[in-house]
Amino acid sequence: MEEFAGAMGTSASLVLRLGQAFFSSASLFFMCWNNEFFRYSAFCFLMAVMSIVIPWSLGLALVDACSIFLKCPIRRREVVSFIVRGDWVLSFMSLGAACSAASVTDYMKNHRTYLCNPTLCDRSQLSAAIALLSCFLSLASSIFNLWLLHSL
Amino acid sequence: MEEFAGAMGTSASLVLRLGQAFFSSASLFFMCWNNEFFRYSAFCFLMAVMSIVIPWSLGLALVDACSIFLKCPIRRREVVSFIVRGDWVLSFMSLGAACSAASVTDYMKNHRTYLCNPTLCDRSQLSAAIALLSCFLSLASSIFNLWLLHSL
Repeated sequence: MEEFAGAMGTSASLVLRLGQAFFSSASLFFMCWNNEFFRYSAFCFLMAVMSIVIPWSLGLALVDACSIFLKCPIRRREVVSFIVRGDWVLSFMSLGAACSAASVTDYMKNHRTYLCNPTLCDRSQLSAAIALLSCFLSLASSIFNLWLLHSL
Repeated sequence: MEEFAGAMGTSASLVLRLGQAFFSSASLFFMCWNNEFFRYSAFCFLMAVMSIVIPWSLGLALVDACSIFLKCPIRRREVVSFIVRGDWVLSFMSLGAACSAASVTDYMKNHRTYLCNPTLCDRSQLSAAIALLSCFLSLASSIFNLWLLHSL
């Protein structure tokens, strides 16, 4: 099992999943701090994606925890294949949403639009940056599981 | 070779590469139509990424064409691995740039800022949509080459 550190059922995978859930929650928290941001589609998209990433990561963290403590890792090809696809889709969506939110915030900051006071813009910028971290962790999980998939 | 349709050295790969070069050029063309867009970082980022994708795709299209006509496909593990990584990075960057440009345009359209008249906004929206197509083709090339890499 050691040769697939980061693949499903390992403690590294559990850490990755908890990291994804933590960063997604933090991103959602900073974005939701101010209700005015619900007006912008880029920010709504980021919130929607993060709302999907949180249950996905927590669910898989639970599966990893069960695999570690019960010592019976799930190694069925169909299951791993489904998880790899889910991770790819979510990491792509997270990347798109984070870039969208970051660029809209950048635009608002540079053009001093009426709704963007510095504190609020900083929060949404922070939210986008944290979402990007979550995206990279999803991508890492997906790559490790892809390696596991090829060995099954 | 038929089992890796889409992987390096096949005619499907050549079509994918030409498609990437075509869509990237079209995206760059629609974005550059109006010089005012150079003021926005999201649009500059899209142009920078598309300017990298064009020579990358054309270069690999040339390699594919040589492989097809000279009947000597390159199947060295290091080369394929380098191309897979390059494709991943470029498809991720294209996705981020396309989403950024699309969301900034959407923001400008919805908030009627002084610089965005309908024609110009439509052009940048079209440019972002075409960049997204180029991104999907890069992703397809990368997946096919990843399959080839695992068989080497």
